[in-house]
Amino acid sequence: MEKPTLPKGTRDFGPVVMAKRQFIFENIRKVFQKYGFQPLETPAMENLSTLTGKYGEEGDQLLFKILNTGDFLKDVDNQKLEARNSKLITSNISEKGLRYDLTVPFARYVVMNRNEISFPFKRYQIQPVWRADRPQKGRYREFYQCDADVVGTNSLICEAEIILMIKEVFKGLGIQDYSIKINHRGILSGIAEYIKAVNETALFVAIDKLDKIGEDGVRQELLTKGFDDASITTLFKILSVKGSATNKIAFLAAHLDTTQHGMNGLRDLQEVLNILKSYGATIDHVDFDIALARGLSYYTGCIFEVKINNVAIGSVSGGGRYDNLTQSFGDKENLSGVGFSFGVDRIYDAMEELKLFPKNAQVSSTVLVCHFDDESFHYGLGVLTQLRSAGIASEIYPDQAKLKKQLDFANKKGISYTIVIGSEEVKSGSLPFKDMEKGEQEKITIDQIISKLQR
Amino acid sequence: MEKPTLPKGTRDFGPVVMAKRQFIFENIRKVFQKYGFQPLETPAMENLSTLTGKYGEEGDQLLFKILNTGDFLKDVDNQKLEARNSKLITSNISEKGLRYDLTVPFARYVVMNRNEISFPFKRYQIQPVWRADRPQKGRYREFYQCDADVVGTNSLICEAEIILMIKEVFKGLGIQDYSIKINHRGILSGIAEYIKAVNETALFVAIDKLDKIGEDGVRQELLTKGFDDASITTLFKILSVKGSATNKIAFLAAHLDTTQHGMNGLRDLQEVLNILKSYGATIDHVDFDIALARGLSYYTGCIFEVKINNVAIGSVSGGGRYDNLTQSFGDKENLSGVGFSFGVDRIYDAMEELKLFPKNAQVSSTVLVCHFDDESFHYGLGVLTQLRSAGIASEIYPDQAKLKKQLDFANKKGISYTIVIGSEEVKSGSLPFKDMEKGEQEKITIDQIISKLQR
Repeated sequence: MEKPTLPKGTRDFGPVVMAKRQFIFENIRKVFQKYGFQPLETPAMENLSTLTGKYGEEGDQLLFKILNTGDFLKDVDNQKLEARNSKLITSNISEKGLRYDLTVPFARYVVMNRNEISFPFKRYQIQPVWRADRPQKGRYREFYQCDADVVGTNSLICEAEIILMIKEVFKGLGIQDYSIKINHRGILSGIAEYIKAVNETALFVAIDKLDKIGEDGVRQELLTKGFDDASITTLFKILSVKGSATNKIAFLAAHLDTTQHGMNGLRDLQEVLNILKSYGATIDHVDFDIALARGLSYYTGCIFEVKINNVAIGSVSGGGRYDNLTQSFGDKENLSGVGFSFGVDRIYDAMEELKLFPKNAQVSSTVLVCHFDDESFHYGLGVLTQLRSAGIASEIYPDQAKLKKQLDFANKKGISYTIVIGSEEVKSGSLPFKDMEKGEQEKITIDQIISKLQR
Repeated sequence: MEKPTLPKGTRDFGPVVMAKRQFIFENIRKVFQKYGFQPLETPAMENLSTLTGKYGEEGDQLLFKILNTGDFLKDVDNQKLEARNSKLITSNISEKGLRYDLTVPFARYVVMNRNEISFPFKRYQIQPVWRADRPQKGRYREFYQCDADVVGTNSLICEAEIILMIKEVFKGLGIQDYSIKINHRGILSGIAEYIKAVNETALFVAIDKLDKIGEDGVRQELLTKGFDDASITTLFKILSVKGSATNKIAFLAAHLDTTQHGMNGLRDLQEVLNILKSYGATIDHVDFDIALARGLSYYTGCIFEVKINNVAIGSVSGGGRYDNLTQSFGDKENLSGVGFSFGVDRIYDAMEELKLFPKNAQVSSTVLVCHFDDESFHYGLGVLTQLRSAGIASEIYPDQAKLKKQLDFANKKGISYTIVIGSEEVKSGSLPFKDMEKGEQEKITIDQIISKLQR
């Protein structure tokens, strides 16, 4: 029989990795809750009618689809079957797919529960998503997203609080060198209007690549899209502005003052900065990046993207304001929303690279009780009960084994302390309590051990 | 456009339900970790070669299968396609399925990581599983399992600790009236031998139904399976024994003394009771139930099942010892293991029925900051920062709105306290701090508010 394998692009998370992941998740969850976000979970499977058409054509192809149960071929048209057209037949044999992100299920939830929800609704959601992408380093077919969104308010404090939450999460994780890039779709539209762009979409796609392909690359791309030299030269004059956010806003305001969208965007951005000030927060890490466009998706206001500096990992968080969340489900009265998402797998990789995890991170017992014979084993069970009653995670080596084997087990499992019990200890109650890392040992009573560990 | 729906048998968990579920999960996780179990997570998708054949024929049919991506019909045999045989074609168009339980993925993990794991290995796993079962009350197509298993030791302290963990979890949840049924496959085999059963499997299947179909039903079923009257009469004589576990063990030992399996089972059971005593634990709630058989699956030693009394809900936890966990993956050196699982969805339903959840359980902010105008709004942002810096979950109503609307929002979201800020408060710093449940209000400073809430 062949050894079993994992589907490609998927992973097991053993105890050591789980401890580090839980550290990240708990940090994010704590911050989300501190800011008033409430938890939501949606099913892994959604109807394909919910998912299809929401992520563009490429996204549709990356959906994992669930084969209908039972005789799934029963109602399939003979002609279709004979044509052997996989694409055409899919909708006949599959009705459900795996969640591709957390935003569409959230929109579906809001539409289905509109009357019960009290708006503004702040929800967070921490769950895996699945994409049939080609697996590669840092790209998986199953990965976690941690989303927080507010729907039902236009208030720019939501944008400001996204910045505050990112800062607080990174502080908790010990990540110090990072940039929160912020821009506004209105500003981008204003620039498009100002440079008389022949195609707004092409402009956004091109400047979003500035980081990767440089000024020459963007110029080349825009030329092929029909932009003239004058437009492109003006564009780069705009994009070249340096200095503080306040400087950039003043510079742009002088140029975009005839564009409604541009001025709205600048006003929003300024207001976000003012609100941050009222919070007593600094704008460390905040970088107004005029070239940030965040693809083409549904954003309509402020947009965000977070990069950790000095690691070869893409953005670890991103988001923005959208005005059409529920429209795709036929909702007429659109709700404005704003949200962002942490990519835990990338944050994990960055923290590994920066060596930010504690050395022996492992969810493990604090104490291992070791024993020499049946008498000390049974005595040890009582010791164990006392430790656990005091809330101390602990265990006893379950078999009769040489002491060396028992201590090796403690070391491998990352257990911090051992108590070794022999007939002497059963008589005296004075127990050798050893700090496995320091190698120090002292003979004390179980009560003393407990009060030491509770300190 | 139609309103979106959920796939049948699946559920969303909104904030109120999530709070209650998290309460159960955290309780279980805490106990697992206190007993030295370490977390593991495996992917939702497994290769069908891993899953198929592990759950019997019925189980195989309940697997959710993932359609291969791309042109999945490309390599399908023409003949098969024309035969329109869904069953035959499945393996050609689907290679992966969704996890059906947590035991098989755990076995796969152990086999794949055998050289890195230090045994005995105690792992816990809290993840959803999927079954294409017909949905009905209390039966879902996506539901969570919480498993804890130890592999690599025969020690009966594992069995004893399962009992201790169940007791500790139920204590934490406030569930007081329940029974932990325990039996041993060896005892059942001994009984089969003693009554000269013509078919051991048929015997176990029949007596497992004693609860549901009664003595007459079991007798009828055994007769149709070829058991004679004498066998059946002897069986019921054995099953009729009443009294304490010690009584039952003595009674059975007198009858099964010629059966090796039976005596082994009784010895194990007695040892588990002895170990519990060494732990200083009582045997409250523990019920030696000779008719407990737990289906036909892979158990080889002690078996467990937990029922909450006075609720119309099946067993909420079960498990046992198995000796062949990794055999199905071609592992020659079999590892003995013992484990159990909590069914969170059923525990949830039982706790609802018994009204064990706190009245306003909701993951929500502790404080809502309310405001009258732009000045008090910006002042409120500073108040908010102070609250959050002290670790107090809090939020500000994000829009300008009438006070009544802001207070209604606090009530609906289950926020415990409000601070209402107007121009008076901005000047004096004396803030009206209101307990929303009691309706009591006092004017105090933000520092006083914080120290009150931290108490």
